[in-house]
Amino acid sequence: MFSFSTTELQKVKIQLEQELFERVVPFWERHSLDITYGGYFNCLDQDGSVYDTTKHIWLQGRQVWMFAKLYESVHTEQKWLDIARLGAEFLRKYAKTEGNRVYFATDRQGRGKQIQRKIFSECFYAMALNQFGKVTGEFTYQEEAIELLEHIWTWSKDLRLIGQVSYPGVPPNQGLAIPMIMLNVFEEISGSNWSRYESEIHICINEILQHVDSERKIVFETVGLDGEFIDSIEGRMLNPGHAIEAGWFLQHWAQKLNDQSLQNRALAMVDWSFERGWDQDFGGLYYFLDSEGCPPTPLEWNMKLWWPHTEAMYAWALNYKLRRKESDWNNFMMTLNYSFDHFSDPVHGEWYGYLNREGMRTHQLKGGPYKGCFHVPRGLLYTIQCLEEIGD
Amino acid sequence: MFSFSTTELQKVKIQLEQELFERVVPFWERHSLDITYGGYFNCLDQDGSVYDTTKHIWLQGRQVWMFAKLYESVHTEQKWLDIARLGAEFLRKYAKTEGNRVYFATDRQGRGKQIQRKIFSECFYAMALNQFGKVTGEFTYQEEAIELLEHIWTWSKDLRLIGQVSYPGVPPNQGLAIPMIMLNVFEEISGSNWSRYESEIHICINEILQHVDSERKIVFETVGLDGEFIDSIEGRMLNPGHAIEAGWFLQHWAQKLNDQSLQNRALAMVDWSFERGWDQDFGGLYYFLDSEGCPPTPLEWNMKLWWPHTEAMYAWALNYKLRRKESDWNNFMMTLNYSFDHFSDPVHGEWYGYLNREGMRTHQLKGGPYKGCFHVPRGLLYTIQCLEEIGD
Repeated sequence: MFSFSTTELQKVKIQLEQELFERVVPFWERHSLDITYGGYFNCLDQDGSVYDTTKHIWLQGRQVWMFAKLYESVHTEQKWLDIARLGAEFLRKYAKTEGNRVYFATDRQGRGKQIQRKIFSECFYAMALNQFGKVTGEFTYQEEAIELLEHIWTWSKDLRLIGQVSYPGVPPNQGLAIPMIMLNVFEEISGSNWSRYESEIHICINEILQHVDSERKIVFETVGLDGEFIDSIEGRMLNPGHAIEAGWFLQHWAQKLNDQSLQNRALAMVDWSFERGWDQDFGGLYYFLDSEGCPPTPLEWNMKLWWPHTEAMYAWALNYKLRRKESDWNNFMMTLNYSFDHFSDPVHGEWYGYLNREGMRTHQLKGGPYKGCFHVPRGLLYTIQCLEEIGD
Repeated sequence: MFSFSTTELQKVKIQLEQELFERVVPFWERHSLDITYGGYFNCLDQDGSVYDTTKHIWLQGRQVWMFAKLYESVHTEQKWLDIARLGAEFLRKYAKTEGNRVYFATDRQGRGKQIQRKIFSECFYAMALNQFGKVTGEFTYQEEAIELLEHIWTWSKDLRLIGQVSYPGVPPNQGLAIPMIMLNVFEEISGSNWSRYESEIHICINEILQHVDSERKIVFETVGLDGEFIDSIEGRMLNPGHAIEAGWFLQHWAQKLNDQSLQNRALAMVDWSFERGWDQDFGGLYYFLDSEGCPPTPLEWNMKLWWPHTEAMYAWALNYKLRRKESDWNNFMMTLNYSFDHFSDPVHGEWYGYLNREGMRTHQLKGGPYKGCFHVPRGLLYTIQCLEEIGD
C-alpha cells in the first residue's frame, strides 16, 4: 500500500484551506449579496463587479446550500447563516410558481423570466431549503423540501408532466443527469435516515449503472432503456467530468450501503473516465468526447471547464482514501496542480471557469448563468474533509 | 473611385468558381444523398463519411434550396434537379406534422425526433419547396410554400402560438433573427412579384432597423419593443456575422425598393459590424461580443465559425459593387483570404466549420446538426454573381 509523508498531506490540506477560506468564500461574501432585493448576484466579472442582475435559480439554490453547508461543516460563523438566509428567503418568496415548478431565472426583483422543461431548478431549490432548515432548525424549510422532492421524483419518472415531448416511433432513451441529481438530492435530504427512500435510491443506482459499460470501460451519457449502446451523436457522447461526478455520487452510497461491489464500480467509473477524458497533449479534462472517435459536435467539446476538475480532484482524493493506490494520489495531485495553475485567481479570488484546449483562458467571468458559488467551494470543502479522514 | 485590374477580378472569380464547382458542390453530391430513404445525410465527417443518420430539417430544406438554386442560376444540370427532388420529396413526406408545424429533426426514415418552439424549420421548408417548384414548374410545391408562409407570419408575430412562454412582469423584447429570416423568405417566395407582401416586408425592414444604433454604430441582437437598449447579457450581445448577414438581406430590399437611405444604412451595418467583429490580433470574426466589454457568456464566443465569413465575403463584394470603395475591396479580400486559408479543404472538399480564436481547427466535421450544404455554396454563388456584375 502506497503511503506518503504526513507533511505532504498537511501541505496540500493547508493549500486547499487557504484557497477556500481566503480566496473563494470571501469573493462571494464580498460581491454577491443583494442586500436590497435579497438573493445573490451570480453574474460577476473577474473582480466581482456585477454585469447582469438576473438571478439564475440553480445558482441561488446552490449558494444557499453552500453557505449553510459551510456553517454546518467548518465552524459556525453567524455571517454564513445570514448569507444563506438572504438566499433562502428570496427563493421562498419568488422562485416558485404554479404547480410547484421553480423558475430557471428571475429578474433582480424576483419576477419570473424563464422556466425549463427540466427538474434541476427544483432540485437545487429543495437542496437549499433542506440544508438551510437543517442548520437553523427551522423545520418548515425542510418540510417544504421533502414535499417538493415528491413532485420532483414523479416528474423525473415522466418528463412529459413538465412539458417534455416524446415522439412515437423514436425509441426512448435515458440520460445520466437525472438519476445522478436525484441520488444527490436523496443523499442531502435523507441524511442518515435514508431508509424511507430506499427503493427510490436503488432505482437511481441501477439507472446510473446502466450507463456503465464495464467491458469497454466507458460511462455513457445516454443509453437505451435497457442500457444498450445507441450509435448516434447523443449515444456516443461522453462527458468525462460528469461521469467522474457520477462516480463519487455513487461512491457515497456504496459507503452508506456498505456495498463492496458498488464501491468497486464507482472507483472504476472515475478511473476510466479520467483516463479517457484527460488530454495527454495539453493536460486538463475535455468537456465532451465521442466514444467512437467520430467528430464531437458541441462547439465547446475540447474546452477545459473548471467544474470537471473540481469533481475529479475530490473523486481522486476519495478513491485514494478507499484503496490507497499511488496512482490515485498522483492523479489527485495532477488534477489539483492543473486546476491551481489554470483556474485559481490569487488577485481577486474564486476560479476562472473556461479555457481553450491549450489551457489559455477564454472567459474572464467568475460567475455567469451556469457558474456560481458551488463547484469550487464544494470541491475544496469535500476534498479537505477527505484529506482529514486520510490523515486520521 | 477605386478600381483594380480586370485581371484581379477574373482571378478571384475563377478561384471562387473552382471552389464551388470542384470542391464544395461535389462533396455534397458524393456523400450526402440517401438513395435508400430519401433526403440527405447531413452529419458528415471531413472525408464525407456519415457519422449520424439523423435528418436535421433546417439542413434538408437548405440543401433542396441550394441545389434548386444552382440548377436555376448556373447551368441546368439535370443531376442537380434530381438531388433537389430527393430532398423535396422527403420533406413533403415526412417533415411536416400537426398544425403545419415542421420537425427540427427526423430519423433516417423520417420519423419525427424533435420540434422546436421556433419558426426556422418552417422557413427553410417553405424556401425549399418554393425554389424547387419554381425550377420544376410543379406549382403545388410553391402553393404549399405560400400557404405555409401565412402560418409562419402569424406565428412570427406571436410565438406563444408555437409554445413560447411569456412572463408577466418581464418586459418583452425583440430579436434580430425573426425579421431577418422573414425578410429572406419574402425575398425568396415573392420573387419580382413582391407587392402582395408589401406591408409585411416594410414591417420586417422597420423591425430590423430598430436593432441598428446609428449613433453608437452598433447592430444589437436583442432590443426593447421600441428599439431601446437593454443593459443585460442578452441586450448587450452582438453577433457580428449575423448583423452582417442582416445587412445584405436589407441591401437586397434597398435595391428592389430603390431606397437610397435604406441602401446607406445597409452598407453601414456591414461596415460597423465587421469593424467591431474582426479580431485585430488573430484575424477572423468573433462569434459573439458584449457591446459594453462585459464578459461574453456563450462558451463559443471567441471562436471563428465558417458562416460569418461566407456572409462577410458576399457582403463586402456587394458593398463594393454599390460604392466602389477601396476599403470594401480590401476587406473582401481579407475575408476571402482568411476563409480560404482556414476553412477550405483541398483534399476532401467543403469547408471546415469551427476554429478557436487563434485560428486553429477545433472540429473536423463538414456537416453537423447546424452545418450543411448551404452557407458555403450560397456565399460562393452569390459572390461569383456579384463579381460578374462588378465586371460588367
